Amino acid sequence: MEFTKRQEKIIEIVRESGPITGDEIAGKLSLSRATIRPDLTILTMLNMLGARPKVGYFYTGKSGLSVFSKKVNSIKVKDTMSLPIVMDENSSIYDVIVGLFLDDMSSVFITNGGFLAGVVSRKDLLRTAMGKIDLNSTPIGLIMTRMPNIVYVTEDSSVLEAADKIEEKGVDSLPVVKVVDEELKKFKVVGRFTKTNVNRIFVELAKDNF
Amino acid sequence: MEFTKRQEKIIEIVRESGPITGDEIAGKLSLSRATIRPDLTILTMLNMLGARPKVGYFYTGKSGLSVFSKKVNSIKVKDTMSLPIVMDENSSIYDVIVGLFLDDMSSVFITNGGFLAGVVSRKDLLRTAMGKIDLNSTPIGLIMTRMPNIVYVTEDSSVLEAADKIEEKGVDSLPVVKVVDEELKKFKVVGRFTKTNVNRIFVELAKDNF
Repeated sequence: MEFTKRQEKIIEIVRESGPITGDEIAGKLSLSRATIRPDLTILTMLNMLGARPKVGYFYTGKSGLSVFSKKVNSIKVKDTMSLPIVMDENSSIYDVIVGLFLDDMSSVFITNGGFLAGVVSRKDLLRTAMGKIDLNSTPIGLIMTRMPNIVYVTEDSSVLEAADKIEEKGVDSLPVVKVVDEELKKFKVVGRFTKTNVNRIFVELAKDNF
Repeated sequence: MEFTKRQEKIIEIVRESGPITGDEIAGKLSLSRATIRPDLTILTMLNMLGARPKVGYFYTGKSGLSVFSKKVNSIKVKDTMSLPIVMDENSSIYDVIVGLFLDDMSSVFITNGGFLAGVVSRKDLLRTAMGKIDLNSTPIGLIMTRMPNIVYVTEDSSVLEAADKIEEKGVDSLPVVKVVDEELKKFKVVGRFTKTNVNRIFVELAKDNF
C-alpha cells in the first residue's frame, strides 16, 4: 500500500509535534478535522500512529508491518514443516551420513526407544569425518548433541517462535515434537522445521501467495 | 492491526457478492454510504478490496501484506549481508575445511586471480571427506561448484530477490558480488547472503524492529 501525500504529512507532523490533537493537526494542514478523519483512522489502524484520549496522537515508530506480524504469529509450524529423517542412536556414523545424503538433509534426528535423544548436523559429521574415529563401527550416539541441549518446537508453535529460536540458538533446523511426557522429556519426532521453511514462507508472504 | 466487525462484514459481503457498489454494500448493512466510506477506504488501501469505477468493489484475495512486500523489496542485500570467507582455488581441501570451521560458516567462496571462481558447501566437503581423496594435497578447485553454475546477487539486489534465488535454486548461501566485467563473468566477492540472513530479517520484521 501507498500512503497519500496528506497521510505522509500527517505522520511527519505527529512525529515532530506529537502528542498532538486531531484539531491541531488539521490546523497545521489548513484542513478541517472531518477531512483528515479517515486518514487518522487508517494511520492508527495500521499502528503508525497511536491515539490516547485527552492526549492526542503520537508517533509509534512502527512501520505498518503489524499485518505481517499477526500473520506469522498465526501460521503454525505444522502448516509448513517438512518430513524429518530419524535414525536410532545405535546407527553407525557412516549410516547416518549415508542417510543424510540420500535424503539431502542438513541434519538427522536421533531417537532412543522411539523418543528424541539427539540431533546431528552436517557440521558435526564433517568434523567427525576429519578425525580418526572409525565411522563404520562408532554409533552416532557418541557424537550427537543430546537432550536436554536440543532446541525444539511443537506442531502448534508459531513459525515466528520457531524462527526466533533458530536465530537465538544459532541452529539450522529444529525437530518438531509431540510431547508424550514433558517431565521425563519424552518427545516423539513428527517433523522438521528449518531455515529453508522460513525462507519459503518469507518469499511466499512477500509475493502474497501464502 | 485488527479489522472491526463492520470491516469484516464488508469483506465477507464483497467476497460473496462482488463486484458490488458502495451503495449496495451499505444497503446490505442497513447503513449509509457515508458511514462505511472510511472502512472502504481502509480496505482498498490495504488491497483487501479492489475498486473499479462503474463496476464496484471486488475481493482481491490478498491479505493486506503489501506493506511487508514493499518493505522486503526495498531492503537491499548490502544492508543485511554478512562477511564472506574467500579462499584461492589452489588452497587444499583440508585448508578450506579448517577455514570453514574457524569462521563457523556453511560455505566458502573460491577465487582465481581475485575473481569469483567457485563455491564449496559443507555438503560438498562432507562428501569429499568420505571419499578416498587426499585432502591435504588436492586443491579445492577440483571439487567446487564452478562458474557459470554459481547463483549470485549484487549488493543492490533486494532481499526478496535473494531469498527467491535461494528458494528456487535450493542453495544455502549466495555470494554477493560487485560486477567488474559482466561479459567475462569477472566478479569481486564483497559479501555473503544466506538463509540465516533471511531468518533474521523475518524475525526482526515480525517484531517490527527492522
